[in-house]
Amino acid sequence: MKCKKCGKNAITYLKPYRIALCKDCYVDFYKNLVRRSINRFKILKRGERILASVSGGKDSSAMASILKELGYDVELLYIDLGIGEYSKVSEKAVRDLARDLDLDLNVVRLKDYGFTISDVEISKVCSACGISKRYIMNRFARENDFDVVATGHTAEDVVVFYIKNIASGSKVWAEKLLPRVEGFDKFVTKVKPLYEMSEKENLLYVICKEIPHTLEECPHAPNPDWKEIVYEIERRKPGFVKNFVRGIVKEEKPMKIMHCKICGEVSSGEVCAFCKLRMKYCRSKA
Amino acid sequence: MKCKKCGKNAITYLKPYRIALCKDCYVDFYKNLVRRSINRFKILKRGERILASVSGGKDSSAMASILKELGYDVELLYIDLGIGEYSKVSEKAVRDLARDLDLDLNVVRLKDYGFTISDVEISKVCSACGISKRYIMNRFARENDFDVVATGHTAEDVVVFYIKNIASGSKVWAEKLLPRVEGFDKFVTKVKPLYEMSEKENLLYVICKEIPHTLEECPHAPNPDWKEIVYEIERRKPGFVKNFVRGIVKEEKPMKIMHCKICGEVSSGEVCAFCKLRMKYCRSKA
Repeated sequence: MKCKKCGKNAITYLKPYRIALCKDCYVDFYKNLVRRSINRFKILKRGERILASVSGGKDSSAMASILKELGYDVELLYIDLGIGEYSKVSEKAVRDLARDLDLDLNVVRLKDYGFTISDVEISKVCSACGISKRYIMNRFARENDFDVVATGHTAEDVVVFYIKNIASGSKVWAEKLLPRVEGFDKFVTKVKPLYEMSEKENLLYVICKEIPHTLEECPHAPNPDWKEIVYEIERRKPGFVKNFVRGIVKEEKPMKIMHCKICGEVSSGEVCAFCKLRMKYCRSKA
Repeated sequence: MKCKKCGKNAITYLKPYRIALCKDCYVDFYKNLVRRSINRFKILKRGERILASVSGGKDSSAMASILKELGYDVELLYIDLGIGEYSKVSEKAVRDLARDLDLDLNVVRLKDYGFTISDVEISKVCSACGISKRYIMNRFARENDFDVVATGHTAEDVVVFYIKNIASGSKVWAEKLLPRVEGFDKFVTKVKPLYEMSEKENLLYVICKEIPHTLEECPHAPNPDWKEIVYEIERRKPGFVKNFVRGIVKEEKPMKIMHCKICGEVSSGEVCAFCKLRMKYCRSKA
């Protein structure tokens, strides 16, 4: 398989884009995708002070690197949740990342608030972790004059949240799944610069660019059922994940009411869809 | 496996409800489910003249039967699309259904509009069929003074439409996926009385009650990919389909803004979720 851009040996084939690429061309391709996505969805404004929340994992490391590459004003935030060895490995990856990218790193330790995730009952760990990260990110950003908090959520994350949200009846959070959620009251603006990017694309990018990251999984990582369902849909319908997240962003447009000039029924154009069928297929029989 | 209600031999186990039932108890159970669903979602009003659009298939036959059972004022509409043998078998099933249920049957033939689905190019058949059915149902209902058009859409249909709609960016139609869509202008009100019912439940009902129906598939029936994806999610997450359709109906509620009386951050209650965690787990360490 040859790179479609330069003809060298390809390292990957991206199904949603139907393109094979070599390492260097992939890095350029990825950068362009993220830049275009940030512009299309107006995810970031020039001059904003960005606090990039990083975990040491591939996605947030890719995000930090690409924001720096694209010339944004960014600092890192690492939240130490106190999850034993996993937190230590993660902090090491983040420190390497900050050094390699030459970015300022802020560290907040949950234990300074009097507890760690290891104190929480197993059944409540994921909920407690989410609450703590959202709280600390938002408060740290506001108290340190950042304009936005950026997280490494991927397109798959967004699809899973969206479908789970509807199935759990908690549509109150649907708005939070947009690529940019404007701040209000004490909430700082939240952005997802990798909104359209898949996990595979992020992983390839950190590997190609040798960006420090850890593949260590949180020992409390939730049952991957939902992620696997989304991977399975993507396998059957390549492009589904990207189309879905783009669909979430698309505004609902009210229908324009007209009446068909032939039959008088409601129509979205001058002639209704049914009369168009009639004209086409009655003629074809004549 | 014994029936949970009466102890006789069960004929089915319904995973979403975790209940095994015999034939007679299943028929009662199904009837109760549909009645409660119609009430909960205010799908129908007493006294409305209902035009039940039937295809001869299991779902719309189940719908017609249950509407009659529940005492609604209902007539049937069969649209002859002119799809060769399939349309003949379907019309036969509908005529048997009307006779058995003692309901008036109205038949509209697409060929009276000058063409049939058999005149349409294969690639456009499903779109043309949908346009024709929606047009004829609506116009026939309005011109014959029906208050609502009822269709046999199942919970799986709704989930597939919803997910495909978002992935295709056509959110303009999302509102049409509610169990009752009020009429306006020349549009007659559309209702989906089987909104919460699965295909399996409908099939069991028509079999148990010996309601006339055909299992013949339309020769143009679309690629079952999306249905299969939904079945697969349901297999992995029993109850998903029902929870999803209920989630669609649930209104989005705006968040009530308060400030935590401990830390002053934004909160949905008197004390924010993070301070609740702190209080709980700091204490537990003391």
